[in-house]
Amino acid sequence: MPKKSDELQVYLKKLIHDCLPGNTVDCVIFGYQHNALHILLVQWKHVHVYSLPGGFIHKEEDIDQAAQRVLLERTGLDSVFLKQFYTFGKNNRYETNNKEQLDKKEQLVKALFGEEQALPDLIAKRVVSTGYFAMVDIEKTNVKPDLLSEKCLWIPIQKMPMLFMDHTEMVDKALEHLRIQLNYLPVGLSLLPEKFTMIDLQKLYEAILQKPQERSNFQRKILKLDVLIRHEKRMTGASNKAPYLYSFDKKKYALLLKKGIKFSA
Amino acid sequence: MPKKSDELQVYLKKLIHDCLPGNTVDCVIFGYQHNALHILLVQWKHVHVYSLPGGFIHKEEDIDQAAQRVLLERTGLDSVFLKQFYTFGKNNRYETNNKEQLDKKEQLVKALFGEEQALPDLIAKRVVSTGYFAMVDIEKTNVKPDLLSEKCLWIPIQKMPMLFMDHTEMVDKALEHLRIQLNYLPVGLSLLPEKFTMIDLQKLYEAILQKPQERSNFQRKILKLDVLIRHEKRMTGASNKAPYLYSFDKKKYALLLKKGIKFSA
Repeated sequence: MPKKSDELQVYLKKLIHDCLPGNTVDCVIFGYQHNALHILLVQWKHVHVYSLPGGFIHKEEDIDQAAQRVLLERTGLDSVFLKQFYTFGKNNRYETNNKEQLDKKEQLVKALFGEEQALPDLIAKRVVSTGYFAMVDIEKTNVKPDLLSEKCLWIPIQKMPMLFMDHTEMVDKALEHLRIQLNYLPVGLSLLPEKFTMIDLQKLYEAILQKPQERSNFQRKILKLDVLIRHEKRMTGASNKAPYLYSFDKKKYALLLKKGIKFSA
Repeated sequence: MPKKSDELQVYLKKLIHDCLPGNTVDCVIFGYQHNALHILLVQWKHVHVYSLPGGFIHKEEDIDQAAQRVLLERTGLDSVFLKQFYTFGKNNRYETNNKEQLDKKEQLVKALFGEEQALPDLIAKRVVSTGYFAMVDIEKTNVKPDLLSEKCLWIPIQKMPMLFMDHTEMVDKALEHLRIQLNYLPVGLSLLPEKFTMIDLQKLYEAILQKPQERSNFQRKILKLDVLIRHEKRMTGASNKAPYLYSFDKKKYALLLKKGIKFSA
Protein backbone atom coordinates (compact mmCIF):
# COMPACT_ATOMS: atom_id res chain seq x y z
CA MET A 1 0.00 0.00 0.00
CA PRO A 2 1.51 3.35 -1.01
CA LYS A 3 2.20 5.63 1.91
CA LYS A 4 0.41 8.94 1.95
CA SER A 5 2.86 11.78 1.72
CA ASP A 6 2.80 14.55 4.30
CA GLU A 7 2.15 17.00 1.48
CA LEU A 8 -0.98 15.10 0.50
CA GLN A 9 -2.24 14.93 4.09
CA VAL A 10 -1.92 18.69 4.39
CA TYR A 11 -3.63 19.14 1.01
CA LEU A 12 -6.55 16.94 1.99
CA LYS A 13 -7.03 18.56 5.41
CA LYS A 14 -6.96 22.00 3.82
CA LEU A 15 -9.49 20.89 1.18
CA ILE A 16 -11.96 19.64 3.78
CA HIS A 17 -11.51 22.74 5.90
CA ASP A 18 -11.63 25.30 3.10
CA CYS A 19 -14.23 24.01 0.64
CA LEU A 20 -17.99 23.83 0.17
CA PRO A 21 -19.41 20.33 0.16
CA GLY A 22 -21.44 19.35 -2.86
CA ASN A 23 -20.10 21.74 -5.51
CA THR A 24 -17.16 21.76 -7.90
CA VAL A 25 -16.08 23.60 -11.05
CA ASP A 26 -14.56 22.02 -14.16
CA CYS A 27 -12.82 23.99 -16.89
CA VAL A 28 -12.90 23.30 -20.62
CA ILE A 29 -9.87 25.33 -21.71
CA PHE A 30 -9.64 25.77 -25.47
CA GLY A 31 -6.45 26.63 -27.32
CA TYR A 32 -5.59 26.65 -31.01
CA GLN A 33 -2.42 25.54 -32.81
CA HIS A 34 -1.42 23.80 -36.07
CA ASN A 35 -4.86 24.68 -37.48
CA ALA A 36 -6.62 22.58 -34.83
CA LEU A 37 -8.69 23.32 -31.75
CA HIS A 38 -7.01 21.90 -28.64
CA ILE A 39 -8.14 21.26 -25.10
CA LEU A 40 -6.19 21.18 -21.84
CA LEU A 41 -6.39 17.89 -19.93
CA VAL A 42 -4.79 16.54 -16.77
CA GLN A 43 -3.66 12.95 -16.48
CA TRP A 44 -3.95 11.45 -13.02
CA LYS A 45 -1.11 9.95 -11.04
CA HIS A 46 -0.99 6.15 -10.62
CA VAL A 47 -3.96 5.33 -12.87
CA HIS A 48 -3.33 7.59 -15.89
CA VAL A 49 -7.00 8.51 -16.41
CA TYR A 50 -7.59 11.82 -18.24
CA SER A 51 -9.91 14.50 -16.92
CA LEU A 52 -10.65 18.21 -17.18
CA PRO A 53 -8.87 20.57 -14.79
CA GLY A 54 -11.25 21.38 -11.94
CA GLY A 55 -11.74 21.47 -8.21
CA PHE A 56 -13.80 22.32 -5.18
CA ILE A 57 -15.02 25.82 -4.32
CA HIS A 58 -13.54 27.62 -1.32
CA LYS A 59 -16.06 28.70 1.28
CA GLU A 60 -15.40 32.41 0.77
CA GLU A 61 -15.09 32.21 -3.01
CA ASP A 62 -17.67 32.98 -5.72
CA ILE A 63 -17.92 30.04 -8.12
CA ASP A 64 -16.56 32.30 -10.88
CA GLN A 65 -13.50 32.93 -8.72
CA ALA A 66 -13.02 29.20 -8.18
CA ALA A 67 -12.92 28.70 -11.97
CA GLN A 68 -10.46 31.60 -12.33
CA ARG A 69 -8.24 30.03 -9.68
CA VAL A 70 -8.25 26.65 -11.45
CA LEU A 71 -7.40 28.36 -14.74
CA LEU A 72 -4.57 30.33 -13.15
CA GLU A 73 -3.14 27.31 -11.33
CA ARG A 74 -3.10 25.13 -14.46
CA THR A 75 -2.08 27.68 -17.13
CA GLY A 76 -0.43 30.59 -15.30
CA LEU A 77 -2.97 32.91 -16.95
CA ASP A 78 -5.48 35.29 -15.51
CA SER A 79 -7.57 37.92 -17.26
CA VAL A 80 -8.33 35.65 -20.21
CA PHE A 81 -11.75 34.83 -21.57
CA LEU A 82 -13.60 32.59 -19.11
CA LYS A 83 -17.33 31.94 -19.07
CA GLN A 84 -19.75 29.65 -17.30
CA PHE A 85 -21.61 27.48 -19.81
CA TYR A 86 -23.52 24.69 -18.05
CA THR A 87 -24.02 22.91 -14.75
CA PHE A 88 -23.78 19.14 -14.65
CA GLY A 89 -25.97 17.61 -11.97
CA LYS A 90 -27.06 14.17 -13.03
CA ASN A 91 -27.52 11.82 -10.12
CA ASN A 92 -25.45 9.20 -11.94
CA ARG A 93 -22.62 11.46 -13.19
CA TYR A 94 -20.16 9.06 -11.60
CA GLU A 95 -21.50 6.20 -13.65
CA THR A 96 -21.82 7.89 -17.04
CA ASN A 97 -18.45 6.49 -17.99
CA ASN A 98 -17.45 2.85 -18.12
CA LYS A 99 -16.77 0.42 -15.30
CA GLU A 100 -13.03 0.40 -15.96
CA GLN A 101 -12.81 4.14 -15.29
CA LEU A 102 -14.78 3.85 -12.07
CA ASP A 103 -12.41 1.15 -10.89
CA LYS A 104 -9.56 3.49 -11.68
CA LYS A 105 -11.06 6.19 -9.51
CA GLU A 106 -11.21 3.73 -6.66
CA GLN A 107 -7.61 2.71 -7.31
CA LEU A 108 -6.45 6.30 -7.36
CA VAL A 109 -8.24 7.12 -4.15
CA LYS A 110 -6.73 4.07 -2.46
CA ALA A 111 -3.30 4.86 -3.81
CA LEU A 112 -3.55 8.41 -2.55
CA PHE A 113 -5.38 8.03 0.73
CA GLY A 114 -4.58 4.47 1.81
CA GLU A 115 -6.62 1.27 1.73
CA GLU A 116 -8.18 1.34 5.13
CA GLN A 117 -9.07 4.97 5.64
CA ALA A 118 -12.69 6.04 5.24
CA LEU A 119 -13.02 8.69 2.56
CA PRO A 120 -13.98 12.14 3.77
CA ASP A 121 -17.55 13.15 2.88
CA LEU A 122 -16.26 15.93 0.65
CA ILE A 123 -14.80 13.39 -1.78
CA ALA A 124 -17.14 10.45 -1.29
CA LYS A 125 -20.47 12.24 -1.82
CA ARG A 126 -22.34 13.34 -4.90
CA VAL A 127 -21.32 16.73 -6.27
CA VAL A 128 -22.88 19.09 -8.78
CA SER A 129 -20.27 20.60 -11.09
CA THR A 130 -20.45 23.88 -12.94
CA GLY A 131 -18.62 23.92 -16.27
CA TYR A 132 -16.63 26.96 -17.42
CA PHE A 133 -14.97 27.42 -20.72
CA ALA A 134 -11.89 29.48 -21.42
CA MET A 135 -10.15 30.45 -24.65
CA VAL A 136 -6.42 31.06 -24.41
CA ASP A 137 -3.39 31.66 -26.62
CA ILE A 138 -1.42 28.43 -26.13
CA GLU A 139 1.88 30.28 -26.65
CA LYS A 140 1.23 32.30 -23.52
CA THR A 141 0.38 29.37 -21.25
CA ASN A 142 2.71 27.65 -18.82
CA VAL A 143 0.81 24.49 -17.97
CA LYS A 144 1.31 22.71 -14.64
CA PRO A 145 -0.33 19.57 -13.17
CA ASP A 146 -1.94 19.64 -9.73
CA LEU A 147 -0.94 17.47 -6.78
CA LEU A 148 -3.12 14.57 -7.94
CA SER A 149 -1.97 14.62 -11.59
CA GLU A 150 1.27 13.64 -13.25
CA LYS A 151 0.73 15.61 -16.45
CA CYS A 152 -1.15 18.59 -17.78
CA LEU A 153 -1.21 18.67 -21.58
CA TRP A 154 -2.79 20.10 -24.75
CA ILE A 155 -4.65 17.54 -26.85
CA PRO A 156 -6.31 18.20 -30.25
CA ILE A 157 -10.09 17.88 -29.91
CA GLN A 158 -10.08 15.31 -32.73
CA LYS A 159 -7.72 13.06 -30.76
CA MET A 160 -9.29 13.39 -27.33
CA PRO A 161 -9.02 10.19 -25.25
CA MET A 162 -11.91 8.87 -23.16
CA LEU A 163 -12.34 11.23 -20.21
CA PHE A 164 -13.31 10.51 -16.63
CA MET A 165 -16.93 10.64 -15.42
CA ASP A 166 -19.10 12.95 -17.53
CA HIS A 167 -16.18 15.08 -18.73
CA THR A 168 -16.60 14.03 -22.38
CA GLU A 169 -20.19 15.30 -22.18
CA MET A 170 -18.81 18.55 -20.71
CA VAL A 171 -16.47 19.02 -23.68
CA ASP A 172 -19.30 18.28 -26.15
CA LYS A 173 -21.55 20.81 -24.43
CA ALA A 174 -18.79 23.42 -24.40
CA LEU A 175 -18.21 22.91 -28.13
CA GLU A 176 -21.93 23.23 -28.82
CA HIS A 177 -21.99 26.44 -26.80
CA LEU A 178 -18.95 27.76 -28.68
CA ARG A 179 -20.63 27.10 -32.03
CA ILE A 180 -24.04 28.51 -31.13
CA GLN A 181 -22.58 31.58 -29.41
CA LEU A 182 -19.78 32.07 -31.96
CA ASN A 183 -21.06 35.50 -32.93
CA TYR A 184 -21.04 36.66 -29.32
CA LEU A 185 -17.62 35.32 -28.32
CA PRO A 186 -14.17 36.84 -28.88
CA VAL A 187 -12.81 33.68 -30.52
CA GLY A 188 -10.36 35.35 -32.90
CA LEU A 189 -9.01 37.69 -30.27
CA SER A 190 -8.62 34.95 -27.66
CA LEU A 191 -7.28 32.07 -29.73
CA LEU A 192 -5.10 33.69 -32.41
CA PRO A 193 -1.78 35.45 -31.85
CA GLU A 194 -1.73 39.27 -31.96
CA LYS A 195 -1.16 39.33 -35.75
CA PHE A 196 -2.59 36.79 -38.17
CA THR A 197 -3.44 36.36 -41.84
CA MET A 198 -6.92 36.09 -43.33
CA ILE A 199 -6.26 32.40 -43.96
CA ASP A 200 -5.38 31.90 -40.27
CA LEU A 201 -8.73 33.39 -39.30
CA GLN A 202 -10.59 31.32 -41.87
CA LYS A 203 -8.92 28.11 -40.66
CA LEU A 204 -9.89 28.96 -37.08
CA TYR A 205 -13.56 29.32 -38.08
CA GLU A 206 -13.33 26.08 -40.03
CA ALA A 207 -11.81 24.27 -37.03
CA ILE A 208 -14.61 25.47 -34.74
CA LEU A 209 -17.49 24.97 -37.17
CA GLN A 210 -16.07 21.78 -38.68
CA LYS A 211 -17.19 23.13 -42.03
CA PRO A 212 -15.11 24.52 -44.92
CA GLN A 213 -15.55 28.22 -45.74
CA GLU A 214 -15.36 29.56 -49.27
CA ARG A 215 -12.25 31.78 -49.32
CA SER A 216 -13.34 34.97 -51.08
CA ASN A 217 -16.77 34.84 -49.52
CA PHE A 218 -15.26 34.49 -46.03
CA GLN A 219 -12.86 37.38 -46.64
CA ARG A 220 -15.67 39.63 -47.89
CA LYS A 221 -17.89 38.90 -44.88
CA ILE A 222 -15.08 39.38 -42.38
CA LEU A 223 -13.85 42.67 -43.89
CA LYS A 224 -17.42 43.95 -43.94
CA LEU A 225 -17.51 43.66 -40.14
CA ASP A 226 -14.93 46.46 -40.02
CA VAL A 227 -13.04 45.19 -36.97
CA LEU A 228 -9.66 44.36 -38.54
CA ILE A 229 -6.58 46.56 -38.79
CA ARG A 230 -4.33 45.74 -41.75
CA HIS A 231 -0.56 45.68 -41.19
CA GLU A 232 2.52 44.80 -43.28
CA LYS A 233 2.68 41.63 -45.37
CA ARG A 234 3.98 38.39 -43.89
CA MET A 235 7.23 37.93 -45.74
CA THR A 236 7.89 34.23 -45.92
CA GLY A 237 7.39 32.72 -49.37
CA ALA A 238 7.35 34.51 -52.70
CA SER A 239 6.93 38.21 -51.94
CA ASN A 240 4.23 38.89 -54.55
CA LYS A 241 2.04 36.19 -52.96
CA ALA A 242 2.77 37.24 -49.38
CA PRO A 243 -0.47 37.65 -47.38
CA TYR A 244 -1.27 40.72 -45.32
CA LEU A 245 -1.18 40.50 -41.55
CA TYR A 246 -4.17 41.72 -39.54
CA SER A 247 -4.98 42.41 -35.92
CA PHE A 248 -8.28 43.17 -34.20
CA ASP A 249 -9.39 46.69 -33.39
CA LYS A 250 -10.26 45.75 -29.81
CA LYS A 251 -12.69 48.61 -29.22
CA LYS A 252 -14.68 47.99 -32.38
CA TYR A 253 -14.57 44.23 -31.80
CA ALA A 254 -15.97 44.59 -28.26
CA LEU A 255 -18.81 46.81 -29.52
CA LEU A 256 -19.62 44.37 -32.31
CA LEU A 257 -19.70 41.36 -29.95
CA LYS A 258 -22.09 43.18 -27.68
CA LYS A 259 -24.57 43.55 -30.53
CA GLY A 260 -23.77 40.11 -31.91
CA ILE A 261 -21.77 39.69 -35.09
CA LYS A 262 -24.10 39.24 -38.04
CA PHE A 263 -21.96 36.54 -39.60
CA SER A 264 -23.71 33.49 -40.96
CA ALA A 265 -21.17 30.80 -41.74
CA MET B 1 -43.98 33.21 19.06
CA PRO B 2 -45.95 31.31 16.41
CA LYS B 3 -46.17 27.59 17.04
CA LYS B 4 -44.69 25.29 14.44
CA SER B 5 -47.35 23.17 12.88
CA ASP B 6 -46.98 19.40 12.74
CA GLU B 7 -47.18 19.62 8.98
CA LEU B 8 -44.20 21.94 8.90
CA GLN B 9 -42.16 19.70 11.23
CA VAL B 10 -42.74 16.77 8.93
CA TYR B 11 -41.88 18.91 5.91
CA LEU B 12 -38.62 20.08 7.44
CA LYS B 13 -37.54 16.63 8.59
CA LYS B 14 -38.27 15.22 5.15
CA LEU B 15 -36.31 18.04 3.52
CA ILE B 16 -33.23 17.39 5.63
CA HIS B 17 -33.47 13.66 5.09
CA ASP B 18 -34.20 13.76 1.34
CA CYS B 19 -32.09 16.61 -0.04
CA LEU B 20 -28.53 17.38 -1.09
CA PRO B 21 -26.82 20.02 0.99
CA GLY B 22 -25.44 23.01 -0.84
CA ASN B 23 -27.53 23.00 -4.04
CA THR B 24 -30.90 24.36 -5.06
CA VAL B 25 -32.80 25.11 -8.27
CA ASP B 26 -34.82 28.26 -8.99
CA CYS B 27 -37.29 28.56 -11.85
CA VAL B 28 -37.95 31.64 -13.97
CA ILE B 29 -41.32 30.66 -15.46
CA PHE B 30 -42.40 32.92 -18.32
CA GLY B 31 -45.97 33.30 -19.49
CA TYR B 32 -47.62 35.75 -21.87
CA GLN B 33 -50.98 37.49 -21.66
CA HIS B 34 -52.52 40.89 -22.49
CA ASN B 35 -49.56 41.54 -24.83
CA ALA B 36 -47.09 41.39 -21.93
CA LEU B 37 -44.47 38.94 -20.77
CA HIS B 38 -45.30 37.65 -17.26
CA ILE B 39 -43.38 35.77 -14.63
CA LEU B 40 -44.56 33.40 -11.90
CA LEU B 41 -43.66 34.47 -8.35
CA VAL B 42 -44.40 33.13 -4.89
CA GLN B 43 -45.11 35.41 -1.96
CA TRP B 44 -43.96 34.12 1.40
CA LYS B 45 -46.16 33.58 4.42
CA HIS B 46 -45.84 36.01 7.36
CA VAL B 47 -43.38 38.43 5.72
CA HIS B 48 -44.84 38.83 2.20
CA VAL B 49 -41.47 38.85 0.42
CA TYR B 50 -41.57 37.78 -3.26
CA SER B 51 -39.28 35.16 -4.70
CA LEU B 52 -38.94 32.74 -7.59
CA PRO B 53 -40.37 29.24 -7.18
CA GLY B 54 -37.51 26.89 -6.28
CA GLY B 55 -36.22 24.31 -3.88
CA PHE B 56 -33.62 21.79 -2.81
CA ILE B 57 -32.56 18.80 -4.90
CA HIS B 58 -33.50 15.31 -3.76
CA LYS B 59 -30.59 12.96 -3.25
CA GLU B 60 -31.67 10.58 -6.01
CA GLU B 61 -32.79 13.31 -8.44
CA ASP B 62 -30.94 14.85 -11.41
CA ILE B 63 -30.95 18.64 -11.09
CA ASP B 64 -33.08 18.80 -14.26
CA GLN B 65 -35.64 16.58 -12.54
CA ALA B 66 -35.66 18.85 -9.48
CA ALA B 67 -36.54 21.79 -11.72
CA GLN B 68 -39.26 19.74 -13.46
CA ARG B 69 -40.70 18.84 -10.05
CA VAL B 70 -40.79 22.50 -8.93
CA LEU B 71 -42.47 23.47 -12.20
CA LEU B 72 -45.06 20.69 -11.84
CA GLU B 73 -45.78 21.48 -8.19
CA ARG B 74 -46.30 25.21 -8.84
CA THR B 75 -48.10 25.11 -12.22
CA GLY B 76 -49.56 21.63 -12.61
CA LEU B 77 -47.65 21.29 -15.91
CA ASP B 78 -45.10 18.85 -17.09
CA SER B 79 -43.71 18.32 -20.59
CA VAL B 80 -43.42 22.06 -21.22
CA PHE B 81 -40.30 23.91 -22.33
CA LEU B 82 -37.76 23.99 -19.48
CA LYS B 83 -34.07 24.76 -19.83
CA GLN B 84 -31.14 25.41 -17.55
CA PHE B 85 -29.70 28.86 -18.19
CA TYR B 86 -27.19 29.83 -15.49
CA THR B 87 -25.84 28.87 -12.08
CA PHE B 88 -25.71 31.49 -9.36
CA GLY B 89 -22.86 30.92 -6.94
CA LYS B 90 -21.74 34.26 -5.53
CA ASN B 91 -20.44 33.97 -2.00
CA ASN B 92 -22.62 36.92 -0.98
CA ARG B 93 -25.83 35.89 -2.78
CA TYR B 94 -27.67 36.30 0.51
CA GLU B 95 -26.55 39.89 0.77
CA THR B 96 -27.15 41.04 -2.79
CA ASN B 97 -30.50 42.39 -1.75
CA ASN B 98 -31.19 45.01 0.88
CA LYS B 99 -31.07 44.80 4.66
CA GLU B 100 -34.84 44.93 5.00
CA GLN B 101 -35.23 41.76 2.95
CA LEU B 102 -32.59 39.93 4.96
CA ASP B 103 -34.41 40.86 8.16
CA LYS B 104 -37.55 39.45 6.63
CA LYS B 105 -35.83 36.16 5.92
CA GLU B 106 -34.87 35.98 9.56
CA GLN B 107 -38.42 36.84 10.59
CA LEU B 108 -39.85 34.16 8.33
CA VAL B 109 -37.46 31.54 9.61
CA LYS B 110 -38.32 32.46 13.21
CA ALA B 111 -42.03 32.49 12.47
CA LEU B 112 -41.78 29.08 10.87
CA PHE B 113 -39.25 27.29 12.98
CA GLY B 114 -39.47 29.05 16.34
CA GLU B 115 -37.24 31.59 18.03
CA GLU B 116 -34.95 29.37 19.98
CA GLN B 117 -34.29 26.47 17.65
CA ALA B 118 -30.97 26.28 15.85
CA LEU B 119 -31.48 26.21 12.09
CA PRO B 120 -30.57 22.99 10.35
CA ASP B 121 -27.38 23.17 8.26
CA LEU B 122 -29.37 22.58 5.09
CA ILE B 123 -31.11 25.94 5.47
CA ALA B 124 -28.48 27.94 7.32
CA LYS B 125 -25.52 27.30 5.00
CA ARG B 126 -24.46 28.83 1.70
CA VAL B 127 -26.06 27.23 -1.36
CA VAL B 128 -25.30 27.40 -5.06
CA SER B 129 -28.48 27.68 -7.12
CA THR B 130 -29.00 26.60 -10.72
CA GLY B 131 -31.50 28.71 -12.63
CA TYR B 132 -33.96 27.14 -15.10
CA PHE B 133 -36.34 28.93 -17.33
CA ALA B 134 -39.65 27.67 -18.56
CA MET B 135 -42.15 29.03 -21.09
CA VAL B 136 -45.77 28.09 -20.54
CA ASP B 137 -49.25 28.91 -21.82
CA ILE B 138 -50.78 30.72 -18.82
CA GLU B 139 -54.25 29.45 -19.74
CA LYS B 140 -53.10 25.90 -19.12
CA THR B 141 -51.55 26.51 -15.70
CA ASN B 142 -53.11 25.87 -12.32
CA VAL B 143 -50.81 27.72 -9.95
CA LYS B 144 -50.40 26.67 -6.33
CA PRO B 145 -48.22 28.06 -3.50
CA ASP B 146 -45.90 25.78 -1.53
CA LEU B 147 -46.04 25.23 2.21
CA LEU B 148 -43.94 28.32 2.94
CA SER B 149 -45.85 30.68 0.64
CA GLU B 150 -49.26 32.24 0.86
CA LYS B 151 -49.61 33.07 -2.82
CA CYS B 152 -48.35 32.02 -6.21
CA LEU B 153 -49.12 34.58 -8.90
CA TRP B 154 -48.41 35.87 -12.42
CA ILE B 155 -46.83 39.33 -12.52
CA PRO B 156 -46.01 41.35 -15.67
CA ILE B 157 -42.22 41.69 -16.04
CA GLN B 158 -42.63 45.47 -16.21
CA LYS B 159 -44.29 45.53 -12.77
CA MET B 160 -42.05 43.06 -10.97
CA PRO B 161 -41.58 43.90 -7.27
CA MET B 162 -38.19 43.67 -5.55
CA LEU B 163 -37.33 39.99 -5.23
CA PHE B 164 -35.56 38.13 -2.48
CA MET B 165 -31.80 37.53 -2.52
CA ASP B 166 -30.35 37.51 -6.05
CA HIS B 167 -33.64 36.55 -7.70
CA THR B 168 -33.92 39.85 -9.59
CA GLU B 169 -30.50 39.11 -11.10
CA MET B 170 -31.81 35.66 -12.04
CA VAL B 171 -34.77 37.15 -13.91
CA ASP B 172 -32.49 39.63 -15.71
CA LYS B 173 -30.15 36.84 -16.76
CA ALA B 174 -33.08 34.69 -17.94
CA LEU B 175 -34.40 37.58 -20.04
CA GLU B 176 -30.96 38.16 -21.55
CA HIS B 177 -30.75 34.45 -22.39
CA LEU B 178 -34.22 34.53 -23.93
CA ARG B 179 -33.27 37.47 -26.16
CA ILE B 180 -29.86 36.13 -27.26
CA GLN B 181 -31.19 32.61 -27.86
CA LEU B 182 -34.50 33.76 -29.34
CA ASN B 183 -33.77 32.06 -32.66
CA TYR B 184 -33.11 28.74 -30.97
CA LEU B 185 -36.09 28.72 -28.61
CA PRO B 186 -39.71 27.70 -29.29
CA VAL B 187 -41.10 30.97 -27.96
CA GLY B 188 -44.15 31.20 -30.22
CA LEU B 189 -45.09 27.58 -29.72
CA SER B 190 -44.67 27.73 -25.94
CA LEU B 191 -46.17 31.11 -25.11
CA LEU B 192 -49.00 31.59 -27.61
CA PRO B 193 -52.27 29.64 -27.73
CA GLU B 194 -52.65 26.98 -30.43
CA LYS B 195 -54.03 29.48 -32.97
CA PHE B 196 -52.96 33.11 -33.20
CA THR B 197 -52.86 36.01 -35.63
CA MET B 198 -49.79 37.54 -37.23
CA ILE B 199 -50.24 40.57 -34.97
CA ASP B 200 -50.28 38.31 -31.89
CA LEU B 201 -46.94 36.88 -32.96
CA GLN B 202 -45.50 40.30 -33.70
CA LYS B 203 -46.59 41.62 -30.30
CA LEU B 204 -44.93 38.64 -28.61
CA TYR B 205 -41.63 39.40 -30.35
CA GLU B 206 -41.99 43.05 -29.40
CA ALA B 207 -42.66 42.15 -25.75
CA ILE B 208 -39.56 39.97 -25.60
CA LEU B 209 -37.22 42.24 -27.55
CA GLN B 210 -38.65 45.47 -26.10
CA LYS B 211 -38.42 46.91 -29.59
CA PRO B 212 -41.18 47.71 -32.09
CA GLN B 213 -41.24 45.65 -35.31
CA GLU B 214 -42.29 47.08 -38.66
CA ARG B 215 -45.52 45.23 -39.54
CA SER B 216 -45.12 44.24 -43.19
CA ASN B 217 -41.43 43.56 -42.76
CA PHE B 218 -42.11 41.29 -39.78
CA GLN B 219 -44.81 39.42 -41.68
CA ARG B 220 -42.55 38.91 -44.69
CA LYS B 221 -39.69 37.56 -42.57
CA ILE B 222 -41.93 35.24 -40.57
CA LEU B 223 -43.72 33.81 -43.62
CA LYS B 224 -40.37 33.24 -45.32
CA LEU B 225 -39.45 30.83 -42.50
CA ASP B 226 -42.18 28.50 -43.80
CA VAL B 227 -43.26 27.15 -40.40
CA LEU B 228 -46.81 28.52 -40.20
CA ILE B 229 -50.05 26.85 -41.23
CA ARG B 230 -52.79 29.28 -42.24
CA HIS B 231 -56.34 28.60 -41.00
CA GLU B 232 -59.71 30.40 -41.16
CA LYS B 233 -60.04 34.12 -40.40
CA ARG B 234 -60.68 35.32 -36.86
CA MET B 235 -64.22 36.64 -37.15
CA THR B 236 -64.59 39.39 -34.59
CA GLY B 237 -64.74 42.91 -36.06
CA ALA B 238 -65.55 43.92 -39.63
CA SER B 239 -65.26 40.76 -41.72
CA ASN B 240 -63.23 42.31 -44.55
CA LYS B 241 -60.55 43.35 -42.02
CA ALA B 242 -60.58 40.04 -40.14
CA PRO B 243 -57.06 38.63 -39.73
CA TYR B 244 -56.09 35.07 -40.59
CA LEU B 245 -55.36 32.62 -37.81
CA TYR B 246 -52.13 30.64 -37.91
CA SER B 247 -50.61 27.72 -36.04
CA PHE B 248 -47.11 26.28 -36.08
CA ASP B 249 -46.15 23.29 -38.19
CA LYS B 250 -44.47 21.58 -35.24
CA LYS B 251 -42.22 19.32 -37.31
CA LYS B 252 -40.91 22.13 -39.51
CA TYR B 253 -40.55 24.43 -36.49
CA ALA B 254 -38.48 21.85 -34.59
CA LEU B 255 -36.18 21.36 -37.59
CA LEU B 256 -35.78 25.11 -38.01
CA LEU B 257 -34.92 25.65 -34.33
CA LYS B 258 -32.27 22.98 -34.53
CA LYS B 259 -30.51 24.90 -37.29
CA GLY B 260 -31.27 28.25 -35.71
CA ILE B 261 -33.88 30.59 -37.18
CA LYS B 262 -32.23 33.14 -39.43
CA PHE B 263 -34.40 35.98 -38.18
CA SER B 264 -32.72 39.28 -37.38
CA ALA B 265 -35.11 41.53 -35.51
